[in-house]
Amino acid sequence: MSGTINARLKDLSITLPPATAPVANYVPVVRSGNLLFVSGQICLADGKPVVGKLGNDVSVEDGAAAARLCGLAIIAQVQKALDGDLDRVQQIVKLTGFVNSTGDFADQPKVINGASDLMVEVFGDKGRHARAAVSAAALPLGVAVEIEAIVEVA
Amino acid sequence: MSGTINARLKDLSITLPPATAPVANYVPVVRSGNLLFVSGQICLADGKPVVGKLGNDVSVEDGAAAARLCGLAIIAQVQKALDGDLDRVQQIVKLTGFVNSTGDFADQPKVINGASDLMVEVFGDKGRHARAAVSAAALPLGVAVEIEAIVEVA
Amino acid sequence: MSGTINARLKDLSITLPPATAPVANYVPVVRSGNLLFVSGQICLADGKPVVGKLGNDVSVEDGAAAARLCGLAIIAQVQKALDGDLDRVQQIVKLTGFVNSTGDFADQPKVINGASDLMVEVFGDKGRHARAAVSAAALPLGVAVEIEAIVEVA
Repeated sequence: MSGTINARLKDLSITLPPATAPVANYVPVVRSGNLLFVSGQICLADGKPVVGKLGNDVSVEDGAAAARLCGLAIIAQVQKALDGDLDRVQQIVKLTGFVNSTGDFADQPKVINGASDLMVEVFGDKGRHARAAVSAAALPLGVAVEIEAIVEVA
Repeated sequence: MSGTINARLKDLSITLPPATAPVANYVPVVRSGNLLFVSGQICLADGKPVVGKLGNDVSVEDGAAAARLCGLAIIAQVQKALDGDLDRVQQIVKLTGFVNSTGDFADQPKVINGASDLMVEVFGDKGRHARAAVSAAALPLGVAVEIEAIVEVA
Repeated sequence: MSGTINARLKDLSITLPPATAPVANYVPVVRSGNLLFVSGQICLADGKPVVGKLGNDVSVEDGAAAARLCGLAIIAQVQKALDGDLDRVQQIVKLTGFVNSTGDFADQPKVINGASDLMVEVFGDKGRHARAAVSAAALPLGVAVEIEAIVEVA
């Protein structure tokens, strides 16, 4: 695909995962005005869920890698919603990151940094977002991380 | 009440619960531009909280029924905010569903489907929303499900 | 600083904390259209995290005080984003409050009231917001409360 951001993805050797459709009565992305609301994306590696719990069987480093996978899935959904043209992204407005963790885990920010860093790598200053990073008691399929996003587009 | 959506509610034999006011310094719905931000609605049956924890004493089926109750409360709040005229709903933009569960529960999506399915039953394609479904360690009054919403109106 | 709201803060003897910058690839506030999206603010007292878990070692009263600290941090970030002029706040649109709690805690609303009450004290009717209050399994640095906000500005 053409465009500055798609070229940057290539330069960074980033291959986006397929933007998959939910198998339920909801959709991956809804646009309202200039905002795209992106459904919570779980961490999938080659389509398989990356499972586990921070503070137990997943390290902070592996959690950050899982968060990056969520970030890639978000970008893939945005790319599809924009008919491939990621240059229409004006700003990654907000990420809300949910970490599957034990009750005494305290490094949620370091985990979600895996997605935050990706956004700035790919979109530069347009990738700098507001963020919340909290723990969920559990997540779908037992995955380690789920992240949702709000994105402003032209 | 008149209107296409209110008629559909009647056809579906859906009776909305009362849209209750919070007993604190917040409000059920705030409008900003064309968006209604709907406060988190807990599952109430005949005004009484439906309590319990998924993965422990609440089945996925009962959880989905609880999520549907949250969805009904959301529609009731939107109806009230729109002076009864649900035909002004342009799109259910986003649902964020919190499931009260044990740490090893993995079927959050099946639970929140109870609300997602309701939105499509009632609003058709305008009911197809972006969504996140995660577990909360606990919820107000011990309820099984809480769901908040963003709704675009005309 | 001048302005009606800054004067009200003085009348209420409220001193805002410093609006600190995150030490990661995200920002405290992103503006999109007329909305400010404020990153999740944790409870800090004199810059030190207020840690603990509701239902265990933090009382509801202390939790509400912690939520108020989150609210002060939100106002500080909004003040900074508006170059000091809090009179440009049109409406506190939404607060999402995450309470670090045990699995059987049920008073999330009373905790988050600490922030909700503050918003109405400071902004009057413009402070009445939509809200969700849920428990997180854990929070960054082990803090008791984290709250994010959406604010409409002129």
